Amino acid sequence: MQLLKQKIVNEGKTLEGNIIKVDTFLNHQIDIELLNEIGKEFKKRFQDKDVTKILTIEASGIAVAVIAAQYFNVPVVFAKKTVGKNMDKAVYIGSVYSYTKSQHYNILVSKDSISHEDNVLLIDDFLANGQAILGLKEIVDAAQANLVGAGIVIEKGFQKGGKLLRDAGIQVESLAIIDSLENNIIVFRDE
Amino acid sequence: MQLLKQKIVNEGKTLEGNIIKVDTFLNHQIDIELLNEIGKEFKKRFQDKDVTKILTIEASGIAVAVIAAQYFNVPVVFAKKTVGKNMDKAVYIGSVYSYTKSQHYNILVSKDSISHEDNVLLIDDFLANGQAILGLKEIVDAAQANLVGAGIVIEKGFQKGGKLLRDAGIQVESLAIIDSLENNIIVFRDE
Repeated sequence: MQLLKQKIVNEGKTLEGNIIKVDTFLNHQIDIELLNEIGKEFKKRFQDKDVTKILTIEASGIAVAVIAAQYFNVPVVFAKKTVGKNMDKAVYIGSVYSYTKSQHYNILVSKDSISHEDNVLLIDDFLANGQAILGLKEIVDAAQANLVGAGIVIEKGFQKGGKLLRDAGIQVESLAIIDSLENNIIVFRDE
Repeated sequence: MQLLKQKIVNEGKTLEGNIIKVDTFLNHQIDIELLNEIGKEFKKRFQDKDVTKILTIEASGIAVAVIAAQYFNVPVVFAKKTVGKNMDKAVYIGSVYSYTKSQHYNILVSKDSISHEDNVLLIDDFLANGQAILGLKEIVDAAQANLVGAGIVIEKGFQKGGKLLRDAGIQVESLAIIDSLENNIIVFRDE
């Protein structure tokens, strides 16, 4: 998606440790116009699927998911990382391994919010090692719902998540795939 | 806001401890159509203000803020509760007291994302003790920006936040104010 790549080039900052910082438009400050274009693009890429629900994970996936949901006319569910005191007792649990923190944590979705009749599209802002998407897939599977695919804004193509998910048969649509950040140069995958 | 109150009556669940659970449409599963009506209503109530930025706090404020932002044509910034490894070092810090956890925690906003020229509208899903809004106000003040007001979806009118904020001169616009949840009966404030 050209507009997104241009934005990454113009405003993204590369940091030590293969980090690309996009917090002027995606995961701290949010550019709503760009998000709308992202939402339209996801709709285009999954237009032949009868998506009935969008599932994401708090926190930075929420903005992308709710704007995109407007083009699918479906509700969003966001998986929670902590059990609030008003959370349902009946939940589906997914396990996510955090490479940053070197530990597993659980994500939770109320059983009331996904059914076996749902066609679920996963949405997230970043794909790196694929652990968040795998955790969400666990929840979709537990609900015996149908997993339509995963819509990702930025994929770090030099990390293993994309390959892992595609090898597992998941339709992964990443709007910008970065194949290298070496020497602070952003190299996109040709599409 | 009638549509919202109707939704609260139809789908909200009252729990022990003055809790109103609205996770079928607001803070777990999200009803995008309702959120759009909420966004329009915020725009109506703050239409005479030249809002340049919407500020909220992760996680459940984000959905409301980004949908509302479409009616104001402004970016959203969401304050973070944890310091990520790609967070700017230069941040404004607000302090929030959590009654649930009986402790203070910090919320952070990059200095790049709010300037003294901004007219900032705060948005959140719930107002109870007002601590989140006060923490966000701290950040707006630290940036020497102008605080336009606070748009709240559901205010627990029987808790002290609303009075506290209004007494401090903040224009608080709550789309549904619940004055009592006693005996599991939802009593709205007349408006």
